[in-house]
Amino acid sequence: MFMPVPVYSFSGAVRQEGFRMASLGKKALILTGKNSARQSGALQDVLTVLHENAVETCLFEDITENPTVDSVAAAAAFGRREQADFVIGIGGGSPMDAAKAAAYLMASPERQPSDLYTAGEDNHLPLALIPTTCGTGSEVTAVSVLTRPEKQTKKSISHKIFADLAFIDGAYLSSAPLSVLRHTALDAFTHCVESYLNTQADDFSRMYAREGLRLWQENRSVLETAEADAGCFQQMMNASAMAGMAIAQTGTGIPHALSYALTYHLHIPHGKAVGYFTVGFLQEAGERSCRGVLQQAGFSSLQEFREWYRALYGIPEVPKNLLESAVESLLANPAKLRTAPFPTNRTVLRMIAENLLNET
Amino acid sequence: MFMPVPVYSFSGAVRQEGFRMASLGKKALILTGKNSARQSGALQDVLTVLHENAVETCLFEDITENPTVDSVAAAAAFGRREQADFVIGIGGGSPMDAAKAAAYLMASPERQPSDLYTAGEDNHLPLALIPTTCGTGSEVTAVSVLTRPEKQTKKSISHKIFADLAFIDGAYLSSAPLSVLRHTALDAFTHCVESYLNTQADDFSRMYAREGLRLWQENRSVLETAEADAGCFQQMMNASAMAGMAIAQTGTGIPHALSYALTYHLHIPHGKAVGYFTVGFLQEAGERSCRGVLQQAGFSSLQEFREWYRALYGIPEVPKNLLESAVESLLANPAKLRTAPFPTNRTVLRMIAENLLNET
Repeated sequence: MFMPVPVYSFSGAVRQEGFRMASLGKKALILTGKNSARQSGALQDVLTVLHENAVETCLFEDITENPTVDSVAAAAAFGRREQADFVIGIGGGSPMDAAKAAAYLMASPERQPSDLYTAGEDNHLPLALIPTTCGTGSEVTAVSVLTRPEKQTKKSISHKIFADLAFIDGAYLSSAPLSVLRHTALDAFTHCVESYLNTQADDFSRMYAREGLRLWQENRSVLETAEADAGCFQQMMNASAMAGMAIAQTGTGIPHALSYALTYHLHIPHGKAVGYFTVGFLQEAGERSCRGVLQQAGFSSLQEFREWYRALYGIPEVPKNLLESAVESLLANPAKLRTAPFPTNRTVLRMIAENLLNET
Repeated sequence: MFMPVPVYSFSGAVRQEGFRMASLGKKALILTGKNSARQSGALQDVLTVLHENAVETCLFEDITENPTVDSVAAAAAFGRREQADFVIGIGGGSPMDAAKAAAYLMASPERQPSDLYTAGEDNHLPLALIPTTCGTGSEVTAVSVLTRPEKQTKKSISHKIFADLAFIDGAYLSSAPLSVLRHTALDAFTHCVESYLNTQADDFSRMYAREGLRLWQENRSVLETAEADAGCFQQMMNASAMAGMAIAQTGTGIPHALSYALTYHLHIPHGKAVGYFTVGFLQEAGERSCRGVLQQAGFSSLQEFREWYRALYGIPEVPKNLLESAVESLLANPAKLRTAPFPTNRTVLRMIAENLLNET
């Protein structure tokens, strides 16, 4: 196992421990999306603490959901012009993943966007990550998933980039819309499930997944009511980080791999798209594995999970040919197929992909 | 949380992943004690893999149990003469803690043994650690506890030293005497207990402690029978590592602090000495905390734990004045007192220290 990110996780973490970012450089490129970084107060906390510590900043707020390679390249170009020497990502998975890729590009003036998907040195500018959602776990993983329009899908870059600092403050969740809570928390749940049942799992990765599921289960009522105290928000964020630590060991599995086509073509939010395939995946995993992992999350049966998914997210309409093409793409990825705890072939993958097809 | 050590944990880990040590330097100073490194096969595995990777070695096998500052200084002097540029510790806590301190001393020709207990730079030679017991967790902590004869106790050095690589192979436990299994596994149990109930605990440290207790509980029958399969040994070692990860976040608590006097003056093995104070500590922690943590370890009550301790370890005879002096030393350590989840004063600490006094 390897989990090198120093994590400061408590209410007020940025204000209290953010001075540590001053050791990362003299000028920060701050990457955010349009909303959560400001609404949550996270951006203001970062600006305040950097100003107090005489660190310059430049702000790039144009990271969209499911960021493209081009938008990352634009952010990196901006950071180079501004002579930023470290990067801060604030937000959900999109700004954090974009920050990793920008930190990679900016580490050398020669690096081009095409290098993101070319094997080679992983060195990058120093990086701090601050989540404002409770799903991606990007703050503790080495993964940066970007949208590649020319490939019509999302794909992780070829470089492993762990943050040098992560600050996890549950208070930033309190301004999140219920839909964001739901979609991101479902993503965290699927990270735990796909890691726990992964053929690469070991005692340590299962430790992260089990505790992630336990904290998630203890606090998941917030996804129904949006009513929560500060402790609940902090624990949902911690559950998301543990889920991230789990996939940082094992990688994600079949549902994530199938989901990217739904997000790319139908704009279905990432968590909901992954959840769509989780029902079928758990069914194929077999009664015992399925029940074992669902019980940790507080579901007594697959049927209960299916109903919960339908009630909170609604079952999206997905064209059958899109599911078929997602399956064909996955069949071309033997490394991903080997993560499944059951034999995979076209028939099995179609069973997973089409499990909810007639339930809309 | 911070857990930066890359851990390779499975049967055959050194033979399969040990080539990574070649990136640490050209010549290894290998520190071991008299027995376990050879008996377990760990030393042979290390020598084989280093030889295959053209890394030179020099061997210092004189690390005794509860190593003194002087023995570490001797090891470091040997390593300097041999011009070793990295350090490998193989064994229980003693060789691993000594390896940390030697790696610290050898990082600069000016460093003296007295610098071990002086605040300052923590830089050290690259370091790999390989446990052969299931208790210390030293392979994943930054702590190095040495014996200081002039202070008549054991104390952690002033520097935080995490290993650059750790290899955890449960097969090395299969040759350990039952007494070593018992004493070290009890140490791991107390690490989980003291971390879980520590005032510094958070969701992440409790994650490590909870999963450490869970794996410990699932495999603790080996401490009664010494009969186990390879999976059991691997899991006991993993439980020990998780316990180490827990105390790496919170530090240890009252039982560890009280135990050092018993080990120094009465030569009571470390795990047994800590366990001696764990009964009273759990009693003072209160019914709910006590029951909560004991149940995770498979004990239904404090009385059951007390009887288990008596049956497996025997209750040592400890002079009352030694307990009193241990309490007085602890009263002079307010930082340690603040780790307790209950108010501490002389009366409370004496209740803890003397809990088993009349049970021999």
